Amino acid sequence: MMKRYLLLAALFFSATASQAQDSLFIRKIYDEALVNGQAYDNLRYLCKNIGQRLSGSAGAEKAVTWSKKLMDGYGFDKVYLQEVMVPHWVRGAKEQAYIIDGNKKIAVPIAALGSSIATPASGITANIVEVKSIKELETLGESVIKGKIVFFNGAFDQRFIETGAGYGAAGVQRFAGPSAAAKYGAVGAIVRSITPALDDYPHTGGTVYVDGVTKIPAAAISTLAANKLSNMLRLRKLPLIKFYFKQNCQTLPDVKSYNVIGEIKGSENPNKFITVGGHLDSWDLAEGAHDDGTGVMQSVEVLRILKTTGYKPKNSIRAVFFMNEENGHKGGIKYAEQAAADKEEHIAAIETDEGGFTPRGFSFEGASPAFIKQVNAKFKNLLEPYEADRLVEGGGGTDIGPLKETVPSIKLIGFRPDSQRYFDIHHTANDVFENVNKRELHLGAAAIASMVYLIDQHGLN
Amino acid sequence: MMKRYLLLAALFFSATASQAQDSLFIRKIYDEALVNGQAYDNLRYLCKNIGQRLSGSAGAEKAVTWSKKLMDGYGFDKVYLQEVMVPHWVRGAKEQAYIIDGNKKIAVPIAALGSSIATPASGITANIVEVKSIKELETLGESVIKGKIVFFNGAFDQRFIETGAGYGAAGVQRFAGPSAAAKYGAVGAIVRSITPALDDYPHTGGTVYVDGVTKIPAAAISTLAANKLSNMLRLRKLPLIKFYFKQNCQTLPDVKSYNVIGEIKGSENPNKFITVGGHLDSWDLAEGAHDDGTGVMQSVEVLRILKTTGYKPKNSIRAVFFMNEENGHKGGIKYAEQAAADKEEHIAAIETDEGGFTPRGFSFEGASPAFIKQVNAKFKNLLEPYEADRLVEGGGGTDIGPLKETVPSIKLIGFRPDSQRYFDIHHTANDVFENVNKRELHLGAAAIASMVYLIDQHGLN
Repeated sequence: MMKRYLLLAALFFSATASQAQDSLFIRKIYDEALVNGQAYDNLRYLCKNIGQRLSGSAGAEKAVTWSKKLMDGYGFDKVYLQEVMVPHWVRGAKEQAYIIDGNKKIAVPIAALGSSIATPASGITANIVEVKSIKELETLGESVIKGKIVFFNGAFDQRFIETGAGYGAAGVQRFAGPSAAAKYGAVGAIVRSITPALDDYPHTGGTVYVDGVTKIPAAAISTLAANKLSNMLRLRKLPLIKFYFKQNCQTLPDVKSYNVIGEIKGSENPNKFITVGGHLDSWDLAEGAHDDGTGVMQSVEVLRILKTTGYKPKNSIRAVFFMNEENGHKGGIKYAEQAAADKEEHIAAIETDEGGFTPRGFSFEGASPAFIKQVNAKFKNLLEPYEADRLVEGGGGTDIGPLKETVPSIKLIGFRPDSQRYFDIHHTANDVFENVNKRELHLGAAAIASMVYLIDQHGLN
Repeated sequence: MMKRYLLLAALFFSATASQAQDSLFIRKIYDEALVNGQAYDNLRYLCKNIGQRLSGSAGAEKAVTWSKKLMDGYGFDKVYLQEVMVPHWVRGAKEQAYIIDGNKKIAVPIAALGSSIATPASGITANIVEVKSIKELETLGESVIKGKIVFFNGAFDQRFIETGAGYGAAGVQRFAGPSAAAKYGAVGAIVRSITPALDDYPHTGGTVYVDGVTKIPAAAISTLAANKLSNMLRLRKLPLIKFYFKQNCQTLPDVKSYNVIGEIKGSENPNKFITVGGHLDSWDLAEGAHDDGTGVMQSVEVLRILKTTGYKPKNSIRAVFFMNEENGHKGGIKYAEQAAADKEEHIAAIETDEGGFTPRGFSFEGASPAFIKQVNAKFKNLLEPYEADRLVEGGGGTDIGPLKETVPSIKLIGFRPDSQRYFDIHHTANDVFENVNKRELHLGAAAIASMVYLIDQHGLN
């Protein structure tokens, strides 16, 4: 009887001691991030000295070289480049667009969508048909659409509490709208920017041309201009209002590029991996600060913090700067293929690609209610003092997604910062370093480092 | 036996029905705030058409008149002004300051602290002694301090997760430093700005002159300039470095001003009140956007939302725009005195004065662990979908604080938004409308309206 009590007591104290040790180490992680954090200064360099870095661009090449040098400088156990062929789309000269109202021309800000073709050199002038959804487009059909420019004006639904949900809902018209319009004979597509903000920034982003459908030029228009156009169409009626736009983008041959990978070797299980990553490429309109300079700089910061604090991980920890998230996902696909080819075991991958804002928690892709309950029981109280304890079911991320196919046992985890400001600046000329807050960025790095530590120590099963 | 089961079942379904009803109504509150919210446009007017509004200023007077008109326009049951005498401190012409290094003069940005006296017209030039705390000042004593300018350079501790804690810790040198230095014969005080940010904005804020101690001029210096000054002192040593500053502030006679109050009458308990408030006055360097334009505009928005959604409160709900939070708290004191004089019963008061950032939850002043447990059991799951569910023990706020004395049964509640960016701009020329995010502001109004609704429906006991 006594023996059993002692055993129970030992178990109890060991559990308590483990929690106390975890608690102390997480505090150490946060102190290092908040007092000595380097992500912010690294991000400044990436934004201001390299700037835009769309796949295939000179900026992307510079970013790869600098990122490897950065990781080399930190002295991780292994730093290497992983070759991957990526699309090379270029915007060319700045777009022009105006609403034609009789003799008046009203200039409006647009930005060609990624993968879009150019207009003819003389631009396109046509009548314009406004729809709020692809469904509405389909009800209008070829008789109305043929020869026109389709104006997708579905608005961002402000009622979502997390803006990512609103982005997903409104995003369909950008991904799929232009090809859907082309099927009915449209000559061009103008898509309302996917953002809760009302301003004059057009938000670019990829569109997808469906095989076998004629490619038509497609561009995003700012939300203020979209409202203006919609009002004019409502007040003046077709065919008085026409629309003109000209864009000069083209897709060049694929280019060789790289994922940049840094690694701290596991002391017990060197062939088991926990990956943390964001994407190094960015849209060409600004500096890719929140999308996703913050994510890559947090990823390397996680490794730096773990190394600096003297942590010896049981499993190998990797920071991956994925290439080509924005217009092809080739880096993520390559990483997943290589992991399978190398027979690596992957415990978990954490993606940070929702901006460098104050951490709220993590989402676990496809997790069962039982899993969520368990992960909360194990980790929630340790993350609560840092207000990063919202552990829920939800998406992992675009770059780590392909790992689910090649390493089915992996857990995919999305880092979830506060979502309110992300889509205000996402894919615009306003995604610049000045819009990143140092403490928010560093708190995010600390939250992710803490999650990596907890998974490394305790696993997820 | 059967009867008892039926009773239990009835209780169960009634609890469920009540939660379902609450859940639906809170969703309605959020929809109204996010889709039709007016706080942002009202704040734009307050910031851009009225601007700075320190107690006693023309701006404060304009703000009172406009605020009453705004509330009148919403058609609340009662809108009135509550007279209160307030201090009238004015900054006068912009301050000047430089570090004197031999023949070199290096200009640095300073801002006189609220309540400070002016320097002589010719300014003050003196040797400067750096201390990191009042304790260090005391160890140096009169022999070192007399005739010098004391430079309080205690830094903001970045390790706090909530910046309010860092502000409290570092703030002591601003509140109490100048008078403490004067006791040892200092001729002036220069205080490092209380902020986690490293930039060139000086942060003003009140200082307190202790009765019977000689008043000396006191100013805040930007964090970058503080670092520069500290480095020069370290490298060059006294007495090679001197400091010069000139400021022109003065305290004029007290002025008559007002709290602005709007009320929706309780349908069951008209003499029981739930108060929501922020402060209408602001420091004079900018527009008082986050401090506390957001708070007052959220407060009136709470009433507007409840009225627009057709809610008939059981208890009377008040929005209070307090005057003079920044340099005297006279509005808060007056409101508390009047509540007692009128024998009003007060259930709760919620203060919003930590910026218009994404809501995290609410803090309950002086609450016992049992109370916190209970309030979480009652309300947490209803607020969780909105990520505003962190219900903890903590401060209520400066303006509602005096109610604790006059209406002891009241519960004081602080609205807690994300704290990371607040002290970057707090009390600086950068506290402008452009730094407020519309969705964050409106989510805050919705969170507070939800809390008011829950308290009105279910009480806090």
